[in-house]
Parts: sequence; C-alpha cells; structure tokens
Amino acid sequence: MSKELTVAIVGATGAVGTKMKEQLLKRNFPIKHIKFLASARSAGKEVEFGGKTYTIEEATPEAFEGVDVALFSAGGSVSAKLAPEAAKRGAVVIDNTSHFRMHPEVPLVVPEVNREDLARHNGIIANPNCSTIQMVAALQPIREAFGLTKVIVSTYQAVSGSGVSAIEELRQQSAQWEAGKDVEANILPCKSDKKHYPIARNVIPQIDVFTDNGFTYEEMKMINETKKIMHMPELSVAATCVRVPVVSGHSESVYIEVEKDASVQNIFDVLKNAPGIVLQDDISNQEYPMPLYVEGEDPVYVGRIRQDLSNKKGFHLWIVSDNLLKGAALNSIQIAEAMLEDNLL
Amino acid sequence: MSKELTVAIVGATGAVGTKMKEQLLKRNFPIKHIKFLASARSAGKEVEFGGKTYTIEEATPEAFEGVDVALFSAGGSVSAKLAPEAAKRGAVVIDNTSHFRMHPEVPLVVPEVNREDLARHNGIIANPNCSTIQMVAALQPIREAFGLTKVIVSTYQAVSGSGVSAIEELRQQSAQWEAGKDVEANILPCKSDKKHYPIARNVIPQIDVFTDNGFTYEEMKMINETKKIMHMPELSVAATCVRVPVVSGHSESVYIEVEKDASVQNIFDVLKNAPGIVLQDDISNQEYPMPLYVEGEDPVYVGRIRQDLSNKKGFHLWIVSDNLLKGAALNSIQIAEAMLEDNLL
Repeated sequence: MSKELTVAIVGATGAVGTKMKEQLLKRNFPIKHIKFLASARSAGKEVEFGGKTYTIEEATPEAFEGVDVALFSAGGSVSAKLAPEAAKRGAVVIDNTSHFRMHPEVPLVVPEVNREDLARHNGIIANPNCSTIQMVAALQPIREAFGLTKVIVSTYQAVSGSGVSAIEELRQQSAQWEAGKDVEANILPCKSDKKHYPIARNVIPQIDVFTDNGFTYEEMKMINETKKIMHMPELSVAATCVRVPVVSGHSESVYIEVEKDASVQNIFDVLKNAPGIVLQDDISNQEYPMPLYVEGEDPVYVGRIRQDLSNKKGFHLWIVSDNLLKGAALNSIQIAEAMLEDNLL
Repeated sequence: MSKELTVAIVGATGAVGTKMKEQLLKRNFPIKHIKFLASARSAGKEVEFGGKTYTIEEATPEAFEGVDVALFSAGGSVSAKLAPEAAKRGAVVIDNTSHFRMHPEVPLVVPEVNREDLARHNGIIANPNCSTIQMVAALQPIREAFGLTKVIVSTYQAVSGSGVSAIEELRQQSAQWEAGKDVEANILPCKSDKKHYPIARNVIPQIDVFTDNGFTYEEMKMINETKKIMHMPELSVAATCVRVPVVSGHSESVYIEVEKDASVQNIFDVLKNAPGIVLQDDISNQEYPMPLYVEGEDPVYVGRIRQDLSNKKGFHLWIVSDNLLKGAALNSIQIAEAMLEDNLL
C-alpha cells in the first residue's frame, strides 16, 4: 500500500470515533492528510491524533472537497444529510450509522463475508450493526462449509454500544448502588425513548425503539442486515436483543441449523482457519469467550459449540467480540483497507 | 387448612433457606412446631423465626422423628444422606437440591404444571432447578392451549443462584472495580470448578460444571427437568445458561414452537389467565419484565412476546422471576400447600 489518502472523521469524539482514530494509527493506515469534522457546535474544539493536535472543522458539504475516505460516526441524521454531499465530492463514505444500511444501492460489508460487494459502491459503504458483524463473521465459514438455514440469537450487549454517556451512566449507577442511594437512569435503554431504566444490577430487553411487529429496531437490524450481508434473503433469522451491565464486549447465544451433516469437530476445524475468528472452546479448562477479556481485542471469539441434542443439524455457539472494534471502528477501517487493496480507492 | 404441621428446615441460613423462612411466615403456613437443622458445625447457632429465637440442632437421622414436612436446601450431599432418613421416619421431604430430581420414583413438581404427580410420592418430592421452574410455569398454559414441540432457551441468571457468597463476591468485585483495584474471583462460575472469573462487568457462559456432551449440568437440568415436569420425553429442548451481574432475578430469552395455529394475542389471552403468571407486555409503554423489579415478587413475569418472522408456529418470549422465590423457596412451600390441600400430608 504505497498510496496515501486524505481521511476525514465525522464524529471523532464519540465512543466509536475515538476507536477509529486508534485503529487508523494502530494499523498504520496510509494517511496523507486527516481532518476532523463535527457540527458547528463542536467546531473549533481540539482533538489529538498521532501526537498532534487538530482543530475540529465544521462539517459542511464543502469540507469534504479533496477527501478520499470519510468515516462517519455521528448519528443517522448527520449521515443522511452529509454522506451524499461527501460522495458527490468524490469521497468514499464508510458510514457507521444505520441510515443507509438497507438501501439497495449501498453495500453493507463485513470484509470476511462479502468483500466483493465493495466493488459495486456508489460512494457510500455502510458498516453493519455491531451485533450483526460479529455474528455473520462467525457464521460465514460455517455456512460456506455446511450451509445455513436457520439462526436464532439472544444477545448480551454492552453499554458502550449506546455511547460514552451510557458507560458513564453505568459507572454512576454502580456508585449510587454501592452507596445505598437511589439509582438514576437517563440514557438506557434508549435515549430517545420515553422511559429509562437502570442498567446496573439489571438486564434490559430493549435496545433501540420498538417497531410495529413487536421486535425492536436493533432486533430487526440483526435480522435484515444478516440476510443482506450473507446474500440470503430466505434465511430464517430471529433475534432478541438485551442490554447487560458490561462496559464493552457483546456476547451472543446463537442457535443455528445447517444443511449438510456436520459434527462439533467439523465446526471447530472450520473456525480454526477462519479469518478474524479465534476458536476459544476448551471446556475441560473452562476456556470460553467472555466480554471482560475481549475489550481492546480485534478478533471475534467463538466457543461453547455444542450439537443440539434433538436435531443433528442444529448447533449452539457463544460468540463474543469488542463491539467498538470489530463491531464498529475496526470493521470500518478494514473496509477502507480492503478497498485500497482492491483498487477501489 | 385447620391441620397444623411440624416443619423442619435443613439449611436455614443459606440464600434459599432464608427465603423459605420468610415464605412460611408470609403465607401463614400452618405450623404447629418448627425446627432448624444443620451440620454438627452449625448446630448450637441461633436463628430468628417469627419473632422467636431457635437453636439449630444437628441434622441427625433421629432429628426427623415426628416431622411432617422437611424442607431441604443444604446441598446435594446432605439431601442424599438425610432425605431418605427423614422419609423413613414419616416426614415428607421437599428437596431443593438436584440430587433426587431425575430419580424415577421422585416427583419433580411445579404445582401449576404437574400437581397431580405429588400423589405418587414415596416420601421425597424434588423442587426443580430455578431456571426450569419459571420457564415451565410460563410454557404450560401455552402448551395446554396450542401444544408445544420445541424450546430453545438462553438464560441471564443472577448470582444469588450461587448462594450468599456469590452475592457478596459481586459486591466486592464492584467495589474493587470502582476503586480501580484488581478484581478477585473465588466463587463463580462454580465454586467446585478449577478456575474462577469475575462476574462484575462480565457475563460467564458457565453455570455448574460441564458434562461430557459439552453442555453444563445447569443446561442439562433445564433440558431433562423440563421434559420430566411436563411429561414430554420427546420434547425438543435446548439451553444455554449464562451468569450475569444481577443480584436476584433470572431472565430467559425463550424460543418455542407450538403445534396449532396461534397469534400473539392468543398467547396473551392464555397467559393473562394463567396461575402464577403476570403478563407484562406493553411495548408502547416500554413495559416488559426486568430482574431489578422482580426481586421479592412471587409471580413469573412474561413479556416481549413475538411471533417468529419465518415460522408462524414459532414464538419468542422473555420470562423473568425471582430465582430465590418461585425458583426455589416459594415453589417448595407451594408444594407443601398443595399436598396439604390434596390431603397428602
């Protein structure tokens, strides 16, 4: 990669934006020039990057002139307004919000799964939902080897998926609880919804707001995005998404049904050699993935693999990954890297 | 209920034993005489009950002479040794441990589901696993109305299921975490297993030790006990059991398949009138069960009921109950009450 690019980050001070900066540096992404963009309210503030201080500029349409890659993570309404403006000016937008994900013209990409979709972009690539990314990354190698007909997932999602303020809220609620004070809730389950519930010492079976069919948007994202990324519109997918008092690291209890005969050892063999996957399944030594140990780690960890006792084509898996990394910032940067390698940038 | 009984509690100072005492008082169980039994080590200590102080006696076989009902919650090895001795002396044992649950001669009972099994007891009744009780209590009315062919459950289990020491461990780990100290783990996931992991800010996909088939004992309990209680040996049941940093209140994400056509409204109607069940499902007002709010409450709460989007006979439910009450102490006392009503005591 000798080519160097002009990169813009929109939303650099958020939970995901902060990780995007770290990943660009850690992975030596070939940056010629970088700029940080935000709303007029935040313009003029300073951010650190690679030992230098940068002043945040206002994210106007014109600010994208000359930008090669624009990483968006500042909310759906910002992407809705500015991603097309950036694309119009020749930037490739990699958008971490849900706004464009289901748009038929917008590739929704996990490079290990559907890298080939990057080639048909029209200036905007969508980064999938965090819970979806880690699940499809783990299921794709199994699907390639044995087929896939059914997915039922129950999630155990960390608060960092709701941003920096949700992490702070968990800390405050824990301190209030320790001190025997009333626990205040203002963010979770969903800032824009009417009621808020404590997450400390609790689990909340709501992530994002509800849709008309009784599933939440988060659940529908997992269902619809999985089908789109895997190019399997007929796949049977169901999700129940639950917030747990964990800082970072989403966990998933996943039941799948495959088409061909397979054994647990077959699944082990497939996952052992799969890109971006770490098989962590040694129950004799109590080795299985846990969110506390994946924070700051790139891979998707898979363990607790069991064949269903009633259905030989059914398997149970436990999938854990850092929702801010593979679930968000890392996957975005990997999309940019794949495009660079494939001469799409 | 004019009859009054002599009651013995074995293990009165544990997490479940404490709740058994509370439930006996709260429910005005007709007690003529009560005695508290424990190992020689604890004998001589004092316990409070109904404003009086009792001295704990050593749990010898002879201590059960004259006892009508013996409530055991002091570990499987104590039940293994002393429950038959108590039964031999005419007591009806209601055993909260897993020791006798799968014994073909021992009824395993949730009164709302299989009360009729109490009649065929031989002196010992087993109280099912906490996670199993709340699930079968919620599934039985659905099964009666629409049949049941498949159950896949992922649990979110509170630390109190591992006893008083696990609750204390969560508190200590939280304080250590708040103070920026190293977090010590000595109890969870399973005191008798080799490794221990922090539960604060974590979820652990292991409850009890592992069996040879890759499932944990907790998972196999849910599978085997569900089939036994519901008298459905052919039922397809799978479980993934996970510990979460919640004090009390087990939550379950449950997928079921039924035999007859049904709608979400049909399931609502059935659960609304079901004994021991509270339907808490009003997503327009963000009403759904959460463990923080069920602590100290008797019912099994059910919400988030959705029809599967790929299978009209598939439904998703979210089931929450206080694992120390309906999951343990309350169900034990309800067994005794049912036996009294049915003239089995």
